[in-house]
Amino acid sequence: MQYHVDGRLVPAEEATVSVRDRGFMYGDAAFETLRVYGGDPFRWDAHRDRLQRTAETLGFGAAVPDDLRERVDETLAANDLQEAYVKLSVTRGVQPGKLTPDPEVEPTVVVICSELPTGGRDGDPVWDGPADLQTVRTRRIPSESLPADAKTHNYLNGILARLELQRAAPDGDAADEALVRDIDGTVVEGATSNLFFVADDALRTPSTDLDLLPGITRDVVVELAREEGFPVEEGAYTLDDVREADEAFLTNSTWELRPVGTVDGIDVGTGPMTKLLQRLYDERIEREHY
Amino acid sequence: MQYHVDGRLVPAEEATVSVRDRGFMYGDAAFETLRVYGGDPFRWDAHRDRLQRTAETLGFGAAVPDDLRERVDETLAANDLQEAYVKLSVTRGVQPGKLTPDPEVEPTVVVICSELPTGGRDGDPVWDGPADLQTVRTRRIPSESLPADAKTHNYLNGILARLELQRAAPDGDAADEALVRDIDGTVVEGATSNLFFVADDALRTPSTDLDLLPGITRDVVVELAREEGFPVEEGAYTLDDVREADEAFLTNSTWELRPVGTVDGIDVGTGPMTKLLQRLYDERIEREHY
Repeated sequence: MQYHVDGRLVPAEEATVSVRDRGFMYGDAAFETLRVYGGDPFRWDAHRDRLQRTAETLGFGAAVPDDLRERVDETLAANDLQEAYVKLSVTRGVQPGKLTPDPEVEPTVVVICSELPTGGRDGDPVWDGPADLQTVRTRRIPSESLPADAKTHNYLNGILARLELQRAAPDGDAADEALVRDIDGTVVEGATSNLFFVADDALRTPSTDLDLLPGITRDVVVELAREEGFPVEEGAYTLDDVREADEAFLTNSTWELRPVGTVDGIDVGTGPMTKLLQRLYDERIEREHY
Repeated sequence: MQYHVDGRLVPAEEATVSVRDRGFMYGDAAFETLRVYGGDPFRWDAHRDRLQRTAETLGFGAAVPDDLRERVDETLAANDLQEAYVKLSVTRGVQPGKLTPDPEVEPTVVVICSELPTGGRDGDPVWDGPADLQTVRTRRIPSESLPADAKTHNYLNGILARLELQRAAPDGDAADEALVRDIDGTVVEGATSNLFFVADDALRTPSTDLDLLPGITRDVVVELAREEGFPVEEGAYTLDDVREADEAFLTNSTWELRPVGTVDGIDVGTGPMTKLLQRLYDERIEREHY
């Protein structure tokens, strides 16, 4: 495997950044994870725009290079990948040794990738096992502390949520995803996913007015549901709302739509709305990529 | 300059970590910054203990190697440094590509350093210019989201606080340190420092019951003040308490005791308590290191 670091392709085992790179020292970096179908990144423009917004939140928007897509394409070509997972990071680079950022930014750009079997209608979904979802004590960082819509290398909040799942299951049968609330107790998202559930025949998902990362897969699902004429409500929900749902599923670029099996040990299970949206999502990929 | 990476000394410009190191991808790492006086790290045991606690919070306490002090000493010797700044990091290393940590940890250990002129009574303090302190909107991450007493590579909260200072002063005359409150509006600390102030003849500092990083310099200052018989109060304070203080100063390992000149443009200024504590701190270093 070859990765793309600082403008050139290097063997994965030689792909490194300086220990003084602010991406390493402080997690001072923006990133995106993408799925590639039939050789093309899914929803490239949306990922590119979100990366730009994250970099602007961090104050280095002007330093994001114009040729990110070329770097991704070069990486895919070098590895002969048609169906892949890609992680694209832009850091503030190496700067003089103090915390306050220097306005002069020479960003570090990193593209890593791995093969991931195709999605699409006839594809073989990798993550479709129903997920066990479990509520954790760790709360989402409020936007007053770190804007929730910025996708950065400061990811310990999600890691601590996942560690709770491991610690709750010392024998190894940990839940698959953490159900995370904000400081006020409102349900917001998973550690690496957005949450949808079905109740009273409407599709419901926590509102982007709350502290959550507005996922690109989330947007696609909302769009697909509205096109079908399904009522979609973006709101503020309690744990009980989720536990009592008729169906629930999680979304992110890698998982696409992943059905939920249980929430805090309570059977929620999949159902017709989840299955239909999965099918529509697969068809959308099929139409756009193959 | 030579740095210490993964058990060996390398020239600084070749000191790198994998782009798949979790320290880079997620800021999944513990660190300490130390001052070295006369060839020896100041308060080594306290730093070592705090690093261990941080690693335990992050779930890789058992993987912290026993020979951290040797690695620091080797780095100092290789660079022939007697008076120095050292940053020591331990990351969760490279793991299979998912967010949930793998229990098998091969940590990455990094020691970087630079020369920093001596402290001590006859030393030439580098950071003694009175600091302008300015309140920022960015709030400290609550411990429910990320334990405040863990010193990790997730440092964007402090960076955003410092960026606010820059954005408030486009002509370049930014304040030196951000005064950060918690979500409830209680004063907690600076972006990289602890705060002390004097009011009604007592030395006051935000309590470690609040969401703040309990600094090692902070501990030394509390200890010195108590030894002198000064009343020390650890409490919960408002912005007005700080703005109306008779004296104020900031502490961290690099700055030692740094006097505050102004708080939100209001003259607070230094005074006899600050000067005496600076002198006692210098004497303590002198006695322990030279």
